[in-house]
Amino acid sequence: MAVYTEVSFEELETLLEQYDIGTPMSFKGIAEGIENSNFYLQTDRGAFILTLYEKRVAAEDLPFFLGLMEHLAKAGVHCPLPVKTRDGQSLVSLNLRNAAIVTFLTGIALRRPDVAHCAAGGAALAGLHKAGEGFALKRANALGPVGWRPLAESIHGANTIEDGLDALINGSLEDITAAWPHDLPSGVIHADFFPDNILFVGDAVGGVIDFYFACNDFYVYDLATMLNSWCFELDGSYNITKGQAVISAYRAARPLSEAEIAALPVLMRGAALRFLLTRTYDWLNQDPNAMVRVKDPREYSKKLRFHNKVKHAREYGL
Amino acid sequence: MAVYTEVSFEELETLLEQYDIGTPMSFKGIAEGIENSNFYLQTDRGAFILTLYEKRVAAEDLPFFLGLMEHLAKAGVHCPLPVKTRDGQSLVSLNLRNAAIVTFLTGIALRRPDVAHCAAGGAALAGLHKAGEGFALKRANALGPVGWRPLAESIHGANTIEDGLDALINGSLEDITAAWPHDLPSGVIHADFFPDNILFVGDAVGGVIDFYFACNDFYVYDLATMLNSWCFELDGSYNITKGQAVISAYRAARPLSEAEIAALPVLMRGAALRFLLTRTYDWLNQDPNAMVRVKDPREYSKKLRFHNKVKHAREYGL
Repeated sequence: MAVYTEVSFEELETLLEQYDIGTPMSFKGIAEGIENSNFYLQTDRGAFILTLYEKRVAAEDLPFFLGLMEHLAKAGVHCPLPVKTRDGQSLVSLNLRNAAIVTFLTGIALRRPDVAHCAAGGAALAGLHKAGEGFALKRANALGPVGWRPLAESIHGANTIEDGLDALINGSLEDITAAWPHDLPSGVIHADFFPDNILFVGDAVGGVIDFYFACNDFYVYDLATMLNSWCFELDGSYNITKGQAVISAYRAARPLSEAEIAALPVLMRGAALRFLLTRTYDWLNQDPNAMVRVKDPREYSKKLRFHNKVKHAREYGL
Repeated sequence: MAVYTEVSFEELETLLEQYDIGTPMSFKGIAEGIENSNFYLQTDRGAFILTLYEKRVAAEDLPFFLGLMEHLAKAGVHCPLPVKTRDGQSLVSLNLRNAAIVTFLTGIALRRPDVAHCAAGGAALAGLHKAGEGFALKRANALGPVGWRPLAESIHGANTIEDGLDALINGSLEDITAAWPHDLPSGVIHADFFPDNILFVGDAVGGVIDFYFACNDFYVYDLATMLNSWCFELDGSYNITKGQAVISAYRAARPLSEAEIAALPVLMRGAALRFLLTRTYDWLNQDPNAMVRVKDPREYSKKLRFHNKVKHAREYGL
């Protein structure tokens, strides 16, 4: 978590000439997100985040991400709203990077959300799914089943991380892709609905951030990612009370079909595999200049092993 | 520039039980300073910086640094004010680190201060020197002449950075330490009065930050560090108009003695050598886990070569 591309005040001043958001009062690089360079900007008119998009975010995806935030914000989701230049542009260029300014959201990400937070988060996820309806742009999920095999094939030396990790990855990949559903309710999903990306103000969700994995996919896959990242305790056990809180709050806002309920176990496995794959790859291919602490893949191998024994969605709190 | 030690919201909440500064509304790691982990904290009562002191800051120096900021703030310097716990402590412990909360200062560091900023900065430096009078604690300058030789001896391979760098360092070290003055007006100096550490609000100094090199030494050594870091242009030329602005604003608030004026050239060389030494060492001993971009030592070898030809303080704008 770091700033990859520096921005001087002089460069900021030149940039702000394109906007109508006031005079800068404070400007600091913030350690947020692993993909981009982010700066906290306070002006006499409000607080904002300036993001410079680094190479891991494809330029052709930016209209989707920025347009989605605008669509969701207009539909009432507490998410960053891209600020437009006087010429009506959300996307600008700064220091050879694509860049955007979005509104700053108050609230704090929790490392260990409790049951009340889980319920609020589940309701927020369903609200996001409903708010995304009608958004015109589409983006395929690059980290869905189609993306897993090339990612798995690019991993060499998984067993140096953990005995049997290679077999776990490749065996699960075969089983999960074979069992993957083809027809479930779909739409815009966040695809990275981890506690890191949900800002709480007390027990209420004050903001959802980091839409840079958002795409079109099964809604219940997003729910599976959320259950994976919110409902396990530090000792590796699944907290079914938290799972019930997430699922029942989600269902109260967006009912789940029988097909979605039946598919939940394989989607839980798929979501765990997706994070296991990217973490394993990043662990084995650490860039000393990346200034990022790589997350431990074993958190997700443990979760995947848990899911591989689950028979029914009831075991997740449904 | 990064966060070395993470702090969860849950850990922050526990910490804040010791303070009377309100409820947290926002909490983000910031990419500021190369020595410590810093977090921006906004509560319903104000904005603060939480700092966790990493290994490069000696624990025994913390009472000096925190006490100095308190002393200077009370004397009217716009610097961070350490916030005390309900028990009256400035220094606390968090995640196995010493830590402190200080007030947040509005303002923006400039990469290229102009002449008006140089004048405001020079006046602020003199104000800081005067405000430091009467501060009871003392701290030797670890990066003064006594510290240069061991640092130079620990440098191996300087010529891989630049032809002749080894000879420049060792020759200058001999010459400068031999010519170093022994008796000049002394007191508390900032010792790292770079543009990075001065926050401007328009043309006025809104804040001086990062006191973690502060120590007792010649006042005019601080002025020499400032001239080195504020008055060279990107092409390596010394901008005497900026030098005049710094010096005359400084003298208006704190007159310079004849001895200080006579010593300025050797102090300019010493200040350049000090940053050349640390940058060269850091360049040759990069820690891939440090998450810091090491600064180019050649900026200071160029400045030192310039100073080595200077005969009189007039050439700096005096």
